[in-house]
Amino acid sequence: MVTRSLPSSRMDRLRGLLPGIGADALLVSLLPNVRYLCGFTGSAALLLVEESRSTLFTDSRYTFQAREEVSTARVHVAKHGLIRAVAEALRSHRRRFRVGFSLHGLTVAQKRALDVQSGSTIRWVSDDSIVEGLRAVKDADELERMRDAADLISRVFGDLVRVIGPKMTENDVAAEIEYKIKHYGGSGPSFDTIVASGPRSAWAHARPTSKPLGKSQLVVLDQGAIIRGYCSDMTRTVFLGKATQKVRRLYAAVLEAQAAARNALRPGVAAHEVDAAARGVLNRMKLGAYFTHSTGHGLGLEIHEMPRLGRNERTVVREGMVVTIEPGVYIEGFGGIRIEDEVIVTAAGAVNLTTAPREFLEL
Amino acid sequence: MVTRSLPSSRMDRLRGLLPGIGADALLVSLLPNVRYLCGFTGSAALLLVEESRSTLFTDSRYTFQAREEVSTARVHVAKHGLIRAVAEALRSHRRRFRVGFSLHGLTVAQKRALDVQSGSTIRWVSDDSIVEGLRAVKDADELERMRDAADLISRVFGDLVRVIGPKMTENDVAAEIEYKIKHYGGSGPSFDTIVASGPRSAWAHARPTSKPLGKSQLVVLDQGAIIRGYCSDMTRTVFLGKATQKVRRLYAAVLEAQAAARNALRPGVAAHEVDAAARGVLNRMKLGAYFTHSTGHGLGLEIHEMPRLGRNERTVVREGMVVTIEPGVYIEGFGGIRIEDEVIVTAAGAVNLTTAPREFLEL
Repeated sequence: MVTRSLPSSRMDRLRGLLPGIGADALLVSLLPNVRYLCGFTGSAALLLVEESRSTLFTDSRYTFQAREEVSTARVHVAKHGLIRAVAEALRSHRRRFRVGFSLHGLTVAQKRALDVQSGSTIRWVSDDSIVEGLRAVKDADELERMRDAADLISRVFGDLVRVIGPKMTENDVAAEIEYKIKHYGGSGPSFDTIVASGPRSAWAHARPTSKPLGKSQLVVLDQGAIIRGYCSDMTRTVFLGKATQKVRRLYAAVLEAQAAARNALRPGVAAHEVDAAARGVLNRMKLGAYFTHSTGHGLGLEIHEMPRLGRNERTVVREGMVVTIEPGVYIEGFGGIRIEDEVIVTAAGAVNLTTAPREFLEL
Repeated sequence: MVTRSLPSSRMDRLRGLLPGIGADALLVSLLPNVRYLCGFTGSAALLLVEESRSTLFTDSRYTFQAREEVSTARVHVAKHGLIRAVAEALRSHRRRFRVGFSLHGLTVAQKRALDVQSGSTIRWVSDDSIVEGLRAVKDADELERMRDAADLISRVFGDLVRVIGPKMTENDVAAEIEYKIKHYGGSGPSFDTIVASGPRSAWAHARPTSKPLGKSQLVVLDQGAIIRGYCSDMTRTVFLGKATQKVRRLYAAVLEAQAAARNALRPGVAAHEVDAAARGVLNRMKLGAYFTHSTGHGLGLEIHEMPRLGRNERTVVREGMVVTIEPGVYIEGFGGIRIEDEVIVTAAGAVNLTTAPREFLEL
């Protein structure tokens, strides 16, 4: 069960940050931010957070759902569009009422309509991603959901290794994974499942095809589930048949890079140091040129959140952050290997949320 | 196979419309519009259409994919962000170069960056949804894909009615549908599958739950697949067990409303007339109050496109449009019935793309 107290404490923490951006109120427009603060899961929503109250604006499709889901804000069902309803609510305010908004969360059309309709007393200021900043550190309710989502995808993978074989197509494998996600109670995949075999495994963002996996092939499996709104994300690379020494050596290198990043991850380090730990291992083995992406990323209500564990990222890692650690090597014409786990940052260091084993599997 | 000539003719038609919006060029930012015009399917893209050439801006993740997919535009792989690359391309232009853009397709942050970085010679004008207007009328290549997507979902439903039963949960049924979509070669569902049984079938946008369907229940099944980028959308309502007279009467009424809308749909009528045809049937049977949404909507690369077949929609229906026809009745505490087919508008009237039978099924 969702406890009602948590979203309310999120709202309180947010209010405490408003003076820092020079705002009297905040217009929250990105849906994951709305959900985080008030629990509403519908697709039409604007949330106005003011000092003494908050209002969720939605449309008539969501009248019942909003009343059921939202306890930390009043619900206003807008008859003539959400933007117009927000503008009308703002029009009552005193001179120079300062409203924070996300530069990334409103379209030009929405902002123009707000400017025209909310009147001349409103001053708009950038929200500086303060809600995204709050979301980067997970609370107990979120961690419970993320643990369930990580468990679920590990379980799906455990089933998969028993049935996967060279005659299955990449599409079949993806369908099997996504079927099992729903079968075990997930609401769906958290992103388009990646199943890439043979040389295609060298494409970090390959989409599954109708190609059978084939014998003596590397297969990269990147998958995740959503449970109660929260995402998991896990990659395993398996070999169908008996692997060569080269494949084993590459796998061991990626695994060592992953362990190095995991060891480096603790409260107080900068994100780029975690990336450097993984990259350093691969560089020493002359594999650095084949590691073509970042070491990891935060996740939660969205599959990519703050912080990003990349080369120039100065974000300081904090206790309660949940991130992936996913180094990989991708050799054109040969294939790719990626190993990805989800971990939570604790005072004692990184703790795995992903429960699937990560040793090399020949199937 | 995709023929290369079609996207190029789309680009030509678009260029012919630029003078009408007072633009010398168009910046295309919404991804389905980019895909429609140049074939690119990646998630990072801006397309600049000029009189004599077009340029697709993407990032290094998509270098190979863009070269493979795009023939109607040059590919520019941006090193420091897409917006900055577009702004630099625009800076070379003469005074008062007018660039169309979508008010709905750029965020405030993107537009501000463009304003600052592209210099003072650029005049920005609204694109008036001209690409969406082109997309409303499908060409031969699109119709082939849409026919495949509609066939696939009919086939999935044909399999489903052989296995569905009172002990399956709504989640199980949704998982089965989505598994079969991939099994038959679809890239995935075109929206979150709706499986709503018993009184929950009265919620037009219900999400599946872990509730078993149960005996003597109405079950609304709303599902669609994506094939080669194009969506299908179909709803069937079945009864588990032996239905009452009331259920049969309601089903017959919805079916008659659907037929009336289908008969009204032909080139030259206004969208609201099609809606009125379905609504008129239900009104005469005193069921109008239970029909709480529009009669249908266009679809294609997106699940909701122009035109909308609703009460106040003045859009004129044209040959080559593809729309759903989906009247329904929703009675709180009792249940809901919706029947949805996809049709293409031809000179001779509406022709079904959906091939699944629509007679009442007791299972």
